[in-house]
Amino acid sequence: MIIAVIGGGRCSEEIYELARQVGQEIAKAGAMLMCGGLFGVMEAACRGAKEAGGMTIGILPGKTKEEANAFVDLPIVTGFNDARNVIIARSADGVIAIDGAFGTLSEIAFALNFGKPVVGLRLSFDIPQAVQATTAADAVNLLLKRIEE
Amino acid sequence: MIIAVIGGGRCSEEIYELARQVGQEIAKAGAMLMCGGLFGVMEAACRGAKEAGGMTIGILPGKTKEEANAFVDLPIVTGFNDARNVIIARSADGVIAIDGAFGTLSEIAFALNFGKPVVGLRLSFDIPQAVQATTAADAVNLLLKRIEE
Amino acid sequence: MIIAVIGGGRCSEEIYELARQVGQEIAKAGAMLMCGGLFGVMEAACRGAKEAGGMTIGILPGKTKEEANAFVDLPIVTGFNDARNVIIARSADGVIAIDGAFGTLSEIAFALNFGKPVVGLRLSFDIPQAVQATTAADAVNLLLKRIEE
Amino acid sequence: MIIAVIGGGRCSEEIYELARQVGQEIAKAGAMLMCGGLFGVMEAACRGAKEAGGMTIGILPGKTKEEANAFVDLPIVTGFNDARNVIIARSADGVIAIDGAFGTLSEIAFALNFGKPVVGLRLSFDIPQAVQATTAADAVNLLLKRIEE
Repeated sequence: MIIAVIGGGRCSEEIYELARQVGQEIAKAGAMLMCGGLFGVMEAACRGAKEAGGMTIGILPGKTKEEANAFVDLPIVTGFNDARNVIIARSADGVIAIDGAFGTLSEIAFALNFGKPVVGLRLSFDIPQAVQATTAADAVNLLLKRIEE
Repeated sequence: MIIAVIGGGRCSEEIYELARQVGQEIAKAGAMLMCGGLFGVMEAACRGAKEAGGMTIGILPGKTKEEANAFVDLPIVTGFNDARNVIIARSADGVIAIDGAFGTLSEIAFALNFGKPVVGLRLSFDIPQAVQATTAADAVNLLLKRIEE
Repeated sequence: MIIAVIGGGRCSEEIYELARQVGQEIAKAGAMLMCGGLFGVMEAACRGAKEAGGMTIGILPGKTKEEANAFVDLPIVTGFNDARNVIIARSADGVIAIDGAFGTLSEIAFALNFGKPVVGLRLSFDIPQAVQATTAADAVNLLLKRIEE
Repeated sequence: MIIAVIGGGRCSEEIYELARQVGQEIAKAGAMLMCGGLFGVMEAACRGAKEAGGMTIGILPGKTKEEANAFVDLPIVTGFNDARNVIIARSADGVIAIDGAFGTLSEIAFALNFGKPVVGLRLSFDIPQAVQATTAADAVNLLLKRIEE
């Protein structure tokens, strides 16, 4: 099972800590973590997943794997810039969106369009079809339930 | 100037008529119309633009130009499926979103992410950064003002 | 009808002149010219097409239309980097390849893969399925014949 | 290290057996195998890699992971059709091309364009920059040497 974590490439310390916990919970649940491979929420989630013994996949926007954060195990180098969001939404079994701006919104939109469950944590947008969670553990549990339905 | 019209590949007769008027107003304003090249809101906008003497560009998701609606002058065949939404958001100077579902939401998100103005008509989502309009003429006027700012 | 011209983003003066003549011949034949929108062979072909009253479409690799050469009428902004070659091969009715390196070879390969005729001028590679021409007029005539077959 | 195997989605039994041996050799060398995730050469290489205890990544052209062959461990679902070839060429450290037609040629062209070493086995095209090998073990050894240079 692949769970995607999406969110901004820059974030506050509080959001970073939250994303890190999400990464830990995903690894504990035995799922692989997929993300955009860069910084902020993406790095935090990868860091958390590695701390809990998980595996991480980064779907990179640019042209070389060198742009990946230090906690990406498997860098997939697309060169497609923002269109790589589509690959994350298609490849993951479900998505946890944390904070984030319009890039995150595009990702949520694609995931919902492809019929993938989306759970939000501190979401910046009001998308009724994205279930809201309040803690990292809650978010992962909610998502796993929705995936199994 | 290129104005994109985005919205569902299927729509009600009322929305079809509204999109057709938007296409007419875009052509009257001397702008080219860009869209996803398929049916519903896309076909209606292209039809309207052609009725008013405009030019239409369809950024197609599939593998051949045969999938374009009958009112597309210039079919651009991508084969990228939903990721072609990124091309529309990058190529247009501004976007009018009509009705629509998650595909339309992804398009709005990319346009806002790329700093392009977005005007909504009967939008299904509450995105504060997308200005709401009530008529076709109103939508095109509002968008032109935002593009010129 | 859309004819694509592909070739390097840098080229010798001799190749530039040849590409310019190809652009002129395409416009004289009443076809639109599509290319990657950048410099070298692409710029030369667009320049020639404009000199002969034609229309030019640039399928750009980067994120903004500002990167287009000065002779592109319609910039399509993809942000897909090299993958935009696929769009050219899918959208054009036929391809004229001039000089060029591996990027040009990828374009030839896609065009042949999609069943589009390819004519080569001073091609750097030996691809038997790409018909060789010796002059600009010859190349456009040969391609038009193959498209009509 | 990631080694890509590229080749046709249909192939003869002899080529299938050769691709399977290539997959085995890649796994024995401790590298991950990346491919387009479908059938023919791609399936054979994945099968061989799994027989030798390796890990396989399939960069899929279509919209769902269900199209992957049975020996893909990690399906990456792009929906980008042929443009997914770019992702393979960007993500792999080197490429082994087996037999194949124009799709394979586009992949070789991209890999060489991105500065990745390419080794050919029974290549259908004469590309001087692609080193020719005669056996599966030979191909993997040659590629590993070129990657390390």
